[in-house]
Amino acid sequence: MSTNNTIDVGVLGYRFMGRAHSNALARLPMFFPDAPKIVRHTLIGRDEESLTEAAEQFGFTNTTTDWKEAIEEVDVIYNLGPNHIHPEPSIAALEADTHVFCEKPMAPTLRQAKEMRETAADSKALAGCAFNYRFVPAIKYAKRLIEDGELGEIHQFRGRYLQDWLVDPDAPWSWRSDAELAGSGALGDLGAHTIDLARFLVGDVERVSGHLRTFVDERPVEGEDENRPVTVDDAYSAQAELEDGVMGTFEASRFATGHKNDHIVEVHGSKGSLKFSLERLNELELLRDDNRGYETVLVTDESDPYIDHWWPPGHIIGWEHTFIHENYEFLTAISEDKEFSPSFEDGYRVQRILDAIQQSNKQHEWIKLDTMK
Amino acid sequence: MSTNNTIDVGVLGYRFMGRAHSNALARLPMFFPDAPKIVRHTLIGRDEESLTEAAEQFGFTNTTTDWKEAIEEVDVIYNLGPNHIHPEPSIAALEADTHVFCEKPMAPTLRQAKEMRETAADSKALAGCAFNYRFVPAIKYAKRLIEDGELGEIHQFRGRYLQDWLVDPDAPWSWRSDAELAGSGALGDLGAHTIDLARFLVGDVERVSGHLRTFVDERPVEGEDENRPVTVDDAYSAQAELEDGVMGTFEASRFATGHKNDHIVEVHGSKGSLKFSLERLNELELLRDDNRGYETVLVTDESDPYIDHWWPPGHIIGWEHTFIHENYEFLTAISEDKEFSPSFEDGYRVQRILDAIQQSNKQHEWIKLDTMK
Amino acid sequence: MSTNNTIDVGVLGYRFMGRAHSNALARLPMFFPDAPKIVRHTLIGRDEESLTEAAEQFGFTNTTTDWKEAIEEVDVIYNLGPNHIHPEPSIAALEADTHVFCEKPMAPTLRQAKEMRETAADSKALAGCAFNYRFVPAIKYAKRLIEDGELGEIHQFRGRYLQDWLVDPDAPWSWRSDAELAGSGALGDLGAHTIDLARFLVGDVERVSGHLRTFVDERPVEGEDENRPVTVDDAYSAQAELEDGVMGTFEASRFATGHKNDHIVEVHGSKGSLKFSLERLNELELLRDDNRGYETVLVTDESDPYIDHWWPPGHIIGWEHTFIHENYEFLTAISEDKEFSPSFEDGYRVQRILDAIQQSNKQHEWIKLDTMK
Amino acid sequence: MSTNNTIDVGVLGYRFMGRAHSNALARLPMFFPDAPKIVRHTLIGRDEESLTEAAEQFGFTNTTTDWKEAIEEVDVIYNLGPNHIHPEPSIAALEADTHVFCEKPMAPTLRQAKEMRETAADSKALAGCAFNYRFVPAIKYAKRLIEDGELGEIHQFRGRYLQDWLVDPDAPWSWRSDAELAGSGALGDLGAHTIDLARFLVGDVERVSGHLRTFVDERPVEGEDENRPVTVDDAYSAQAELEDGVMGTFEASRFATGHKNDHIVEVHGSKGSLKFSLERLNELELLRDDNRGYETVLVTDESDPYIDHWWPPGHIIGWEHTFIHENYEFLTAISEDKEFSPSFEDGYRVQRILDAIQQSNKQHEWIKLDTMK
Repeated sequence: MSTNNTIDVGVLGYRFMGRAHSNALARLPMFFPDAPKIVRHTLIGRDEESLTEAAEQFGFTNTTTDWKEAIEEVDVIYNLGPNHIHPEPSIAALEADTHVFCEKPMAPTLRQAKEMRETAADSKALAGCAFNYRFVPAIKYAKRLIEDGELGEIHQFRGRYLQDWLVDPDAPWSWRSDAELAGSGALGDLGAHTIDLARFLVGDVERVSGHLRTFVDERPVEGEDENRPVTVDDAYSAQAELEDGVMGTFEASRFATGHKNDHIVEVHGSKGSLKFSLERLNELELLRDDNRGYETVLVTDESDPYIDHWWPPGHIIGWEHTFIHENYEFLTAISEDKEFSPSFEDGYRVQRILDAIQQSNKQHEWIKLDTMK
Repeated sequence: MSTNNTIDVGVLGYRFMGRAHSNALARLPMFFPDAPKIVRHTLIGRDEESLTEAAEQFGFTNTTTDWKEAIEEVDVIYNLGPNHIHPEPSIAALEADTHVFCEKPMAPTLRQAKEMRETAADSKALAGCAFNYRFVPAIKYAKRLIEDGELGEIHQFRGRYLQDWLVDPDAPWSWRSDAELAGSGALGDLGAHTIDLARFLVGDVERVSGHLRTFVDERPVEGEDENRPVTVDDAYSAQAELEDGVMGTFEASRFATGHKNDHIVEVHGSKGSLKFSLERLNELELLRDDNRGYETVLVTDESDPYIDHWWPPGHIIGWEHTFIHENYEFLTAISEDKEFSPSFEDGYRVQRILDAIQQSNKQHEWIKLDTMK
Repeated sequence: MSTNNTIDVGVLGYRFMGRAHSNALARLPMFFPDAPKIVRHTLIGRDEESLTEAAEQFGFTNTTTDWKEAIEEVDVIYNLGPNHIHPEPSIAALEADTHVFCEKPMAPTLRQAKEMRETAADSKALAGCAFNYRFVPAIKYAKRLIEDGELGEIHQFRGRYLQDWLVDPDAPWSWRSDAELAGSGALGDLGAHTIDLARFLVGDVERVSGHLRTFVDERPVEGEDENRPVTVDDAYSAQAELEDGVMGTFEASRFATGHKNDHIVEVHGSKGSLKFSLERLNELELLRDDNRGYETVLVTDESDPYIDHWWPPGHIIGWEHTFIHENYEFLTAISEDKEFSPSFEDGYRVQRILDAIQQSNKQHEWIKLDTMK
Repeated sequence: MSTNNTIDVGVLGYRFMGRAHSNALARLPMFFPDAPKIVRHTLIGRDEESLTEAAEQFGFTNTTTDWKEAIEEVDVIYNLGPNHIHPEPSIAALEADTHVFCEKPMAPTLRQAKEMRETAADSKALAGCAFNYRFVPAIKYAKRLIEDGELGEIHQFRGRYLQDWLVDPDAPWSWRSDAELAGSGALGDLGAHTIDLARFLVGDVERVSGHLRTFVDERPVEGEDENRPVTVDDAYSAQAELEDGVMGTFEASRFATGHKNDHIVEVHGSKGSLKFSLERLNELELLRDDNRGYETVLVTDESDPYIDHWWPPGHIIGWEHTFIHENYEFLTAISEDKEFSPSFEDGYRVQRILDAIQQSNKQHEWIKLDTMK
């Protein structure tokens, strides 16, 4: 472990999420000078050659193919591999009091998520679950407005996350198509974000009814003359009752032709409403103060969350900035020995809802969350 | 009954719907010169004074407070009163072989809707259910595109209808708040439209899971020092499986602050997607032909449905025009002795789905439509 | 002239504008019961057969091919023919103290417009110029907001009107292509509306600089083996200084591929801004009250201009409704012996600006309006 | 000068633009691994204390208050100070064959811009003018479409750039308010971007007519009890004739209440149209291929310009990314000894148009570009 005032970071995974978090770590000093100093210490992966190349590109000093070794050497492990890789290294790290930042959804099964959360509760280390969309300035601003009562009493929450990368039946099979490795499909990958935002903005879920569909049952394995079964959902919908009687509807799809990364969140309260769209993440559609219609707020003013670190009004930020904000908060929490949300507790609670939606789909009935093991 | 070549129309109800249909009848000659000639024969209501005034304004020759009398005298009865007034006069008219055009939802109870449909099946007269949104040019154009396979195989249907006129807890009690008189709340009033469009555009519903909420339990009676219980839903959501495995989600609310008449329909297919919004009813958002994004089509070209009767491209029509198109089709069907959709069969099938959603909400489980009586 | 309490209307022209005004006249009794009673008395045109057919469809009692005769018989002449038909009958009618409602732009030449305005000034009859977009509820609402100071001191006005029906070089020649008959092209046809709204909403124009372009120099004559020269503009732009130093820019085109009837008006003031688009004429984009972004106001509430005559909130009206409102105001002014705006004075002042833009384009320099004859 | 294979960069200016370019330099290695290796060598400024702090934050090894010294030591000078600082160091660097990357607009006066361009023509070094909006993926994609003839023959170009940071009359005086230091106001600062994009996308300007307005004549000096005169424009408009008879209109304002960084570019051609908005820079509104309306293209596919360096479809980039792309191209051009556009020639030609607009405004007449000295 580092003996000076820096935080040594080990990152497991160097594909999509590895790249997003490495970028975040690299950009903190220039834009968040008050962030703790970090060292991109070790990049962890399986293929040595790719790993070495990635480490050079992402600015890591060391590489290893043995995550157990890394746990001993760094202050914090970023667990950014496929879902089925989340539980074991996270648990081992927390048992060694090494901090963990784990991508979502937390685990393929609820049982594993529960174990991760219990280990986190017993560890001296900090355990964060990387729901990055909480750190979009517009979402944080929305949260503030709701807490300040600007929307009044909340009645309804609506979230849907649409992509289309599987609509082609010849799109190849991947670990994301497999229930063992991924847990679920659109539900876990996309729905986890929606449900986390519902919990963050409005409140926890008390009962759910779910509907899952797999439109294409098997897919070709790339480079092989073989099809493998798709054992996860291509799309899901759910309806929910949240705390205080709030109505919720959730939906996601990988078959929504023409939609690339279209995550929408809408909230209706007694005094106002809001709408957010991830593809226009610098904007918040906001209705309040006896206004007659939605106001398109460009959440890029100096007074908006995180924006004083960036550019003048109207000079928009990108998707990747959510990772910088998230890393800033997580690393600051480590450095200052504070709590961090979303935690493994949050990750577990989302997982419980995902699981209940799957159960409900099978049993054709509503599931109450408090009756779940 | 008229002995010449005109159709004598009797209209029951002279409020909102009475006005919309009377306007439609009045405008046909100028814009649809090939429509059958009609006579605004008799306006039917309960309050003689208001009735006389309305008849003069709407151009009716006669008035009566006895709908039974009217049935004898006219060729077709428009049944535009509150929901609980739909069954009895409709049935009596059809038994007398007087044509009936009935507003939606067809009846407060499924049992009544079934009786109406059976009477219609046995009658020589035509029985239409006035789901006017089928007659929006953009919807008819969407239907054509789907039928022509432009969207490919359909995977998902999404419909939601948002209003906000009940969000104020002091908004007065009305017949629409009462289960006996209205059958249901947002579900029947708004959801009926959504479900009709799902059936029209995509296919019938095979099973549903529903969720109803009443946010405000009682409301003041206007002019009286009394509250009455609200026994219908303020908002509903439903998820559905449609024919051929299409996933559907439906939702409506009278508590969606800032939304006035916001009916949205979205369809995703393997080759394209579309979006429609009632508040911008001249437009269709359309993705097809390997386009990369939604194209905002202004459905006001001469080649678009009904538009050759109206104005040059870009000169938009209004909500009321849907009634003119609907009346044109219905009256032409009478005149030419043809079938008309949406029929009482359609109205009944929608009612069955509404009923299943209510049942599902009570029983906390999915309802299969083919198991319903 | 009518001896009872009705207004007898004679309409010259039965194409596009004839249809729009006839519809307006027909709809007044049902929706504006306090409007003066009118009689669709005489339809005036050149071709007897078409005229008879149109009179029947539009509900006129008489027809004539001699407008002079009509002037004697009716209370008001609607002058809805091509631009070059505007001056003579309007002047004759006003000299006979017959009211005149004349379509825009008022005349092909400024000289003629001046004569029309002078005749109007000397006549006992009312002379209105039919700039119908003043009667869009959203525009009237905008006017009210500006007058109430909601936008503060006005700094900038921007208007542009885009169509595309001439982008095809084979689109046929018509009277609209000819300077003698039409006066100008996009400038007079579309720009007249923009400039009228600038004057209505913000203030008069003091100096202008114009730019006209004809992209296609000659066009085929329909049914003939001949091309005729296009002697008007296909597109124009202008920059202007309005009263109180307001900056203005105007633009119109018949070559804006994909735009059908896209008239946009934007105003910036020290305290707020607004945007209006004719293709979404039920909406006003409004920024005020220290809001951070534009609010999309659906101008369909009962309290909005004219809306109490129509439908509940969110049930949108169409383009044709502007004619109903305009006719209501004009006929009421006749009936109550009041002034009416836009008047021939307004029509003349717009014409002066159109003329100055043309002059400026020729002379390559700014033109001051007060130096014009 | 660097003797190894890296490019040593000296940056003059560490405020807004200094930050944007330093970030770009820092991010190249991770996302553009094929970019030449660069060293953030020297940060140049006037205030030693701020300079040292900025150098640390931005990752520069050295600082100096003497730009002449820096010119000797680095391979390329980034000239990012206020406009009046652009000419002298740029000329000195180019005379020393040190590459120069200069912010826009190139100089306060046309005379200076001309001298810069001539020096560049005589220098062995590369001289780039930093019009970063050419490097927005959507703009580069638009350029490609136009070049490929997808829009047909171009008829019209429209650009406007709206901000509102000066609408408050108490907003303080700055160098940007002064004609000596800034050259012009909204015209040079914002209009330079618009005009560069017009030249880039459509073609050069042949004649212009301009209109400038200063709404607030003097402004308070911060920290002093004094007002200073505003000698530049708060807003400008211009109309132009471009090559091949294309019509153009340009406009910018710092008084457009509610608009933060709203740069819009629109092009109409005989076969299609496009619209771009900087506040939604990941999108391009595109009409082509006989489509009926604009298609909202999210320009974030792997095949889109630069996007293979970033994230999966729908994961949007920000404003700052334009600088990364621009730096990548400029530094690659240096490294590979190639040409770079926009060059000082481009910067000069834009300046000539800015100057002509100012002249036109004074003389109240059109200015032909080829008659300018």
